[in-house]
Amino acid sequence: MDVQRSLDIARKAVERCQRLARLSEEEDRTTRTFLTPPMHEVHRLVRSWMENAGLTVTVDALGNLRGSLQGSQPGAPRLLMGSHLDTVPGAGAFDGVLGVMLALGLVEGFDSEPPECGIEILGFSEEEGVRFGVPFLDSRAIAGTFDRRILERTDARGITMAQAIREFGLDPDGIEAAAYLPSVLGYVEFHIEQGPVLDSLDIPLGVVDAIAGQTRLEVTFRGKTNHAGTTPMHLRRDALPAASEWILEVEREASSTPGLIATVGSIAAMPGAANVIAGEARATLDVRCADDSRRTAAVRRLLDRASAIAERRQLEWTSELRLEQSAVACDREWTNAMVRSIQMAGYPTHRMVSGAGHDAMVMASRMPVTMLFIRSPGGISHHSSETVKIDDVAASLQVGWHFLKQAALHASTRTKRS
Amino acid sequence: MDVQRSLDIARKAVERCQRLARLSEEEDRTTRTFLTPPMHEVHRLVRSWMENAGLTVTVDALGNLRGSLQGSQPGAPRLLMGSHLDTVPGAGAFDGVLGVMLALGLVEGFDSEPPECGIEILGFSEEEGVRFGVPFLDSRAIAGTFDRRILERTDARGITMAQAIREFGLDPDGIEAAAYLPSVLGYVEFHIEQGPVLDSLDIPLGVVDAIAGQTRLEVTFRGKTNHAGTTPMHLRRDALPAASEWILEVEREASSTPGLIATVGSIAAMPGAANVIAGEARATLDVRCADDSRRTAAVRRLLDRASAIAERRQLEWTSELRLEQSAVACDREWTNAMVRSIQMAGYPTHRMVSGAGHDAMVMASRMPVTMLFIRSPGGISHHSSETVKIDDVAASLQVGWHFLKQAALHASTRTKRS
Repeated sequence: MDVQRSLDIARKAVERCQRLARLSEEEDRTTRTFLTPPMHEVHRLVRSWMENAGLTVTVDALGNLRGSLQGSQPGAPRLLMGSHLDTVPGAGAFDGVLGVMLALGLVEGFDSEPPECGIEILGFSEEEGVRFGVPFLDSRAIAGTFDRRILERTDARGITMAQAIREFGLDPDGIEAAAYLPSVLGYVEFHIEQGPVLDSLDIPLGVVDAIAGQTRLEVTFRGKTNHAGTTPMHLRRDALPAASEWILEVEREASSTPGLIATVGSIAAMPGAANVIAGEARATLDVRCADDSRRTAAVRRLLDRASAIAERRQLEWTSELRLEQSAVACDREWTNAMVRSIQMAGYPTHRMVSGAGHDAMVMASRMPVTMLFIRSPGGISHHSSETVKIDDVAASLQVGWHFLKQAALHASTRTKRS
Repeated sequence: MDVQRSLDIARKAVERCQRLARLSEEEDRTTRTFLTPPMHEVHRLVRSWMENAGLTVTVDALGNLRGSLQGSQPGAPRLLMGSHLDTVPGAGAFDGVLGVMLALGLVEGFDSEPPECGIEILGFSEEEGVRFGVPFLDSRAIAGTFDRRILERTDARGITMAQAIREFGLDPDGIEAAAYLPSVLGYVEFHIEQGPVLDSLDIPLGVVDAIAGQTRLEVTFRGKTNHAGTTPMHLRRDALPAASEWILEVEREASSTPGLIATVGSIAAMPGAANVIAGEARATLDVRCADDSRRTAAVRRLLDRASAIAERRQLEWTSELRLEQSAVACDREWTNAMVRSIQMAGYPTHRMVSGAGHDAMVMASRMPVTMLFIRSPGGISHHSSETVKIDDVAASLQVGWHFLKQAALHASTRTKRS
């Protein structure tokens, strides 16, 4: 694929993303949650593009739009490519959607040279977890890890997930069948980085080595509520300075542990009046790392420090675990193939960890996965000012083209072996 | 006044406070804000006690219950004594009310030996500022500093202050007349400490030298909101650790400046989600000190530190002044008289600063004032578990008795001179 061709396809992909961004639940911004009416319009449009590219299109019971193309080698296993078509409220145009449009662009780019392996493009219906508070519904269905109990969850208007699926014209009884994938090579996902790393390094693309594991918890310090005007400093048991000390410890721990990030995003002092000493202070903690043992060790150290701070200040303290999720490694062989593809396309290679969750994380339980990140200018995402550079998108297409050739070769080897 | 007599009067005063605490706007706790129906019942009861003690009782246009007693010397100036009869929501039985009951108890204790000076007991109608958001309405009216514009303020139900005064059966046009005090010696207020100082020193009583000046402001740090999972530590501009650093500076400054207290009672991180880096963090500051220049210097240093923290962390910052109130000194001669009275009664003397505002602060603009604090066990106030010790209350009565004798002597000197 020459540069001019990749630029043309990139422009088309970006235009398609911008067109799809106008299909929204809200008048003035892009909001498209699980199986709401605008998803019908998205399906109509994307289906027509897929069919024009020669794909056979179906929608599975969880609302995933799936376009498949037979490989030139009969019986060759399929490569899955794609990302999600749902959005957060007030989204940009590229989070998720771009990955689907790039997969489509790659297939369209094969005009004269059809791939040896089969290809299935996945337009996932629900990755963000907005409508029912549970993310990755789509890839859970395809990976066969969908828990039917969550069908009873209700959205903000009291509609159950099962009902929402039926209202979209689908049958929740078919969800298990969505996991049927006869012969699959693996899953590849192109996604905007949604962070500032590539932009700060001035590099267009990054290969995702792993998706970080995550611990979320809340720490509470308890002292004594008192009148701010009548309680001398030495008689106070103020919970807020304790929480403040701990927040600085969190920052210090993360800054001094390579590959680890940690955030206190929320804090509350109770009762929270300007003239009342806080009897209680609660702070959240979010720790992420590709290395699970490094993460759990850091969390342990931070809890030890909370304990030491509380003891020194004669406070009570508790912590409550909210989420504990192991890191997921991308497939080593496939990641190497992606790195080689970047080299073949003539771009600098950069391996990185995804701090955010992605469908690839769920798919990894079932098949080899690899992910390519495309630079997010300014690191901005989940906002209408989210953008991509055309050159970066074109670069990702060139890399994708090399990657597909390698995957096809791999499929052909596998077919011959079998 | 012998110890047994003071104990009897103390018990009666405490019982009266507990009885008045049941006169409430709420079924299950004590809440009595400005001129609500239970204040009628309080007036009925306290008026009957006052009249039984030989006082002539009136209610001024702001709802202050005023019981006056002629001195044994005709034409002798009056000593004003009292405190407030309103409460915060969910109050204890003693904040304010005890001061009125002690003044009454002292007058009742004069059975056989009527005071030479005249006495007027003030049961103030509104000190806490709950119903209309403005405190000290009562003493402002008596000191002649009541601003008529606040009559237009409305309470939570949309009733104006003027309307509330009329509904209680009073005429707001008469507020100016409430300031008429023909010949006054000064104002003395007995009040529970509402703080832990006397309790921690194991001393029953404290003489208030001054009421602290106060600065309240809010500091805001502004960085950049980002995804907690995708933004490496070195690319963050997190506002919350900056606020945390500053909170510790506030604590350090106050702990190292004698006589100064400072509190951050409220903090908010925005947007405030566990997985989002705070783009903004706001913290309140409350600084109090009896020495205005020490207070303003400390505030200046704390703002300088906020600036330095923001600069080092590449953040923006602003501060907004909310309240600036100068310290009010109690009358030196009267304070000395109170200290002598404590010595005469045989108790240890302790001079202290009131960090909380009191009616005495407002009265001080018009006349000499002195205040006696009574130990608050555990420092607890503004809560149903607020208590006093009978022995401490009895001690305050003995001190009050000595003080009245001195005041009477003073009045007699003044009368003879005039």
